[in-house]
Amino acid sequence: MSITIYGIAKSRAIRNLWACEELGLAYTHVPVVYGPMGSRKPDFLAINPNGRVPAADVDGVILWESLAINLHLARKAGGPLAPESVDEEGLMTMWSMWAVTEVEAAALALLQHETVKPEAERDPAVVAKSTETLKAPLAVLEGHLASHGGHLVGNRFTIADLNVACCVFYLRFSGLLADKPAIRGWYEAAMARPAAKKAFALRGD
Amino acid sequence: MSITIYGIAKSRAIRNLWACEELGLAYTHVPVVYGPMGSRKPDFLAINPNGRVPAADVDGVILWESLAINLHLARKAGGPLAPESVDEEGLMTMWSMWAVTEVEAAALALLQHETVKPEAERDPAVVAKSTETLKAPLAVLEGHLASHGGHLVGNRFTIADLNVACCVFYLRFSGLLADKPAIRGWYEAAMARPAAKKAFALRGD
Repeated sequence: MSITIYGIAKSRAIRNLWACEELGLAYTHVPVVYGPMGSRKPDFLAINPNGRVPAADVDGVILWESLAINLHLARKAGGPLAPESVDEEGLMTMWSMWAVTEVEAAALALLQHETVKPEAERDPAVVAKSTETLKAPLAVLEGHLASHGGHLVGNRFTIADLNVACCVFYLRFSGLLADKPAIRGWYEAAMARPAAKKAFALRGD
Repeated sequence: MSITIYGIAKSRAIRNLWACEELGLAYTHVPVVYGPMGSRKPDFLAINPNGRVPAADVDGVILWESLAINLHLARKAGGPLAPESVDEEGLMTMWSMWAVTEVEAAALALLQHETVKPEAERDPAVVAKSTETLKAPLAVLEGHLASHGGHLVGNRFTIADLNVACCVFYLRFSGLLADKPAIRGWYEAAMARPAAKKAFALRGD
């Protein structure tokens, strides 16, 4: 496979870098930054007209949407992270979609307003709303992991775990996982994987 | 295949009802309503712990997330709507994810605050923000359709077109497609399909 991942490691591109490391895929990394000096430049808009990172070139097919890229990489690479059946594939796509619709935006807003933004720009209303929004999905994730041997699909670590963990990543400084031992154990095990360590080291933080 | 679709036709379940009609799949429709009288009842939470509709039982596998259900149905059914290759599958998943991350929430907010809510509850700031948010992705969709023969993937109507059209559906009363002839033509052709007409008739509006 010939793979190029576009996007700095401190963007959602980290998800694809991690996936490539897990899948044992060689790749070229083009660390495109956000905005006018990178993802909004005309030559990059020709790759991703949305002007966002990441994007990936996988054997000549250009893809956007970090979690879709990962599902595609796993399908092409095969192995234990990939779906073993159409049913597993359906469930891995479902959990990836679920992470986007139920977790990602609220978790990112929480991270911004609890940790990232300067104190003067933090909005307690956003923190309160995000916390409320995340209550139900985190209970769903906790219940599922606790009753499915600590993995999302197929009793093993798969691209679904990787995709969802990359959204739970935004909650790493929050207190929301304090009463969620199954999520904590699952998340920490994911991040302790050698491929995760290798990829996240590229962030330099 | 043995298929049960849970959720009233006036929910996102319409997406799955339409897909079943397109794919020629027989199904049982259980019109679960939103909230405590339906999707939050304990017996339904056992099907979808998120308490949302739709959910689907496809040959004994329970799935949530309407667009993931459709990708799964197409994969299992095969035929012209389904991916013909791993590359097509990657692109169909990408476009479905894109519709969720770039279009759905803003389009739904716009529909609510321009059309659905009582006038006193409409917030012009939400209309302005949603309109701004949608500008870039609608330009991307217009450009892609105009340069790819009016379809998203594979020069034919696929489950990707169906999934994305179901998000563009929220813009049907807005003026945002006035200067988007490729989107309008694509959307109208999708909605004019016999399977779409049959499914949308179930909404009773």
